[in-house]
Amino acid sequence: MTTLFDNLTNMGHEQVLFCHDRENNLKAIIAIHNTNLGAAMGATRLLPYANEADALRDVLRLSRGMTYKAACANLPVGGGKAVIIARPEDKTDELFKAYGRFVESLNGRFITGQDVNLTPDDVRTIGSETDYVVGKEERSGGPAPLTAMGVLLGIKAAIAFKWQQTNLQGMRVAVQGLGNVGKNLCQHLHENGAQLFVTDIDPNRTAEVQRLYGATVVAPDEIFSLDVDVFSPCALGAIINSSTIPLMRASIIAGAANNQLENEALHGKLLRENNILYCPDYVINAGGLINVYNEMIGYEEGTALRQLNNIYDTLLRIFGIARQQEITTHEASQKLAEQRIEKGKNQKEGRRKDKEKERQSINSLKKRPISVPGDNALELHPSIASKTPVANK
Amino acid sequence: MTTLFDNLTNMGHEQVLFCHDRENNLKAIIAIHNTNLGAAMGATRLLPYANEADALRDVLRLSRGMTYKAACANLPVGGGKAVIIARPEDKTDELFKAYGRFVESLNGRFITGQDVNLTPDDVRTIGSETDYVVGKEERSGGPAPLTAMGVLLGIKAAIAFKWQQTNLQGMRVAVQGLGNVGKNLCQHLHENGAQLFVTDIDPNRTAEVQRLYGATVVAPDEIFSLDVDVFSPCALGAIINSSTIPLMRASIIAGAANNQLENEALHGKLLRENNILYCPDYVINAGGLINVYNEMIGYEEGTALRQLNNIYDTLLRIFGIARQQEITTHEASQKLAEQRIEKGKNQKEGRRKDKEKERQSINSLKKRPISVPGDNALELHPSIASKTPVANK
Repeated sequence: MTTLFDNLTNMGHEQVLFCHDRENNLKAIIAIHNTNLGAAMGATRLLPYANEADALRDVLRLSRGMTYKAACANLPVGGGKAVIIARPEDKTDELFKAYGRFVESLNGRFITGQDVNLTPDDVRTIGSETDYVVGKEERSGGPAPLTAMGVLLGIKAAIAFKWQQTNLQGMRVAVQGLGNVGKNLCQHLHENGAQLFVTDIDPNRTAEVQRLYGATVVAPDEIFSLDVDVFSPCALGAIINSSTIPLMRASIIAGAANNQLENEALHGKLLRENNILYCPDYVINAGGLINVYNEMIGYEEGTALRQLNNIYDTLLRIFGIARQQEITTHEASQKLAEQRIEKGKNQKEGRRKDKEKERQSINSLKKRPISVPGDNALELHPSIASKTPVANK
Repeated sequence: MTTLFDNLTNMGHEQVLFCHDRENNLKAIIAIHNTNLGAAMGATRLLPYANEADALRDVLRLSRGMTYKAACANLPVGGGKAVIIARPEDKTDELFKAYGRFVESLNGRFITGQDVNLTPDDVRTIGSETDYVVGKEERSGGPAPLTAMGVLLGIKAAIAFKWQQTNLQGMRVAVQGLGNVGKNLCQHLHENGAQLFVTDIDPNRTAEVQRLYGATVVAPDEIFSLDVDVFSPCALGAIINSSTIPLMRASIIAGAANNQLENEALHGKLLRENNILYCPDYVINAGGLINVYNEMIGYEEGTALRQLNNIYDTLLRIFGIARQQEITTHEASQKLAEQRIEKGKNQKEGRRKDKEKERQSINSLKKRPISVPGDNALELHPSIASKTPVANK
């Protein structure tokens, strides 16, 4: 049987915390994968996992993904994730408060936010117990504008690498999914002179994009096989698979959807063999994380946009590594991330030493090594003293 | 299959932390059982557990025991424990430092010290990375003097309850084991006029106690069946069992050894049926914990001795509960502990509210909600800005 520590050794996690509050029926797992580059960030999802092993598998996998994502985004952030094992109908304020206290107890080593089955209200409830949560106040627009802008930068990087071209004029782009990100992206593409092909299950959305940006609307199953330069998946995951790749005529895949490849190794390789340049999803869609990070440090548009520009640079480096080493872009992005994480070790060691010095200088000032919460709760029974030999000594 | 959360629900733990450092080969589990009364205290042991499940079982069981022990000792302390899965020959400074960093990351929620296979040097190594460790500096004498004094108080409580007697003059006491605690106890008993019967596997020790305190030396297997008033086990665990109880002629069992009952329910009941008054081991031997606690808050003899007196009072209450409810003293001590832990909830809630207020007042003063370690590590690529549409906006 594979044990938890076997998993941690294989996947490289630092810390897995099982949090339990019997009274409030809280069962949560917080996984901290790596903190070389900074505090572990990762949103919290709530799901009625069939069993604990499923929940653990999910949180271990997703927290590792966050480490790579943050490293590729060049943010001073590590990777973490949390899952709460519960049915959405069993959510209570008390449950989220109990969870918030556990997040607070990690003292900033883990910073969380909103994921599946959590509402902004739930996040605010968590935030009543801890500062280490982002998304308590909604910024106008949410993460979609930065995510869409990041995808645009990714498309620019891909055409620069593939065709040494610096503008999108006349470029044919197929956008799958017209949610907040997809719609936003269409506007940018249109303003940059691209020719749009779009699909969505909601006819109101396609009609709007058709009207505003002159997009050609196609049926959902037609989007894969269009004769376009760029395919931009901005909706579902796992849509790049053994059924869809043979249909594709696009030279570039560059979209915002999560987990686009059904099987990273297999389908990454198939894309490479078909000479389709794939922008790894977690690199090109980092705008969401950049948005969250900037909300945390105090949003300033200039900082966010400068960080967003890293997506362009990072993708060019990834394409270069993939070509040079004859590997998939997905593999190349992992290599780049691992280099940055390895480099981060020294920074972490530096932070640790600073902390040690601070602790030593504080300790040299105080007589009592540490104070204990609840010290004044000590109950003394002086009445007993007289009955005992201690008092007579 | 029983899952970890099932165990936590059954046993009432708050938190279980799996700590992993691949580089330094650290695999540790920190269990925090309950913090109602204060920060969780519990020593760290290092053992080459056959498997992870064994390690987990050990740390869950021992951390719960610490909660009950601290509550019975009336200390403002909760229960925790940690295990490191390793062979003693694989101990390294780097392993203990990596462990110390995890202890530090809990920010005082868990405070640890020395247990099986850890030396004072190892504790100092852990302490180079965290303040939340006790025993870095050895106090002269260690925990034995306070533990022995606590056992003396326990014996006094038992004879007061059983025979309404307030002194030990002429009382016959059998002491099993003449280590630091046993020998110290013999001195106290002798000074209080008791008649001593002792055994130990080391003939030098028995000879010394015979010479100093006029003790009668008996063979190890004779100690159980002596015609004495008090039997005081101060060596091995599990020595009270179905083989030894029928031999016993003592009316009181009051000693310092850990885990004296081979089976708490079964043998506790058997003692009760045989009208033998049993001082629950973890209550009467709390002097060791009181010693550690006082080292932590800055040792002052007066405070430690006053806390020690609680052992007398607490045992009287336990005997009273056991008689009134017709249960074993072991069951009675658990009931008393649970009452105190339940009462501690309100204190904990109060501490939480204080902390929340403090946080809110700090937050209202600062613009940035939180600062992130390593913020200055952010790499910006202004050279890229000119290539991208963001810069043109």
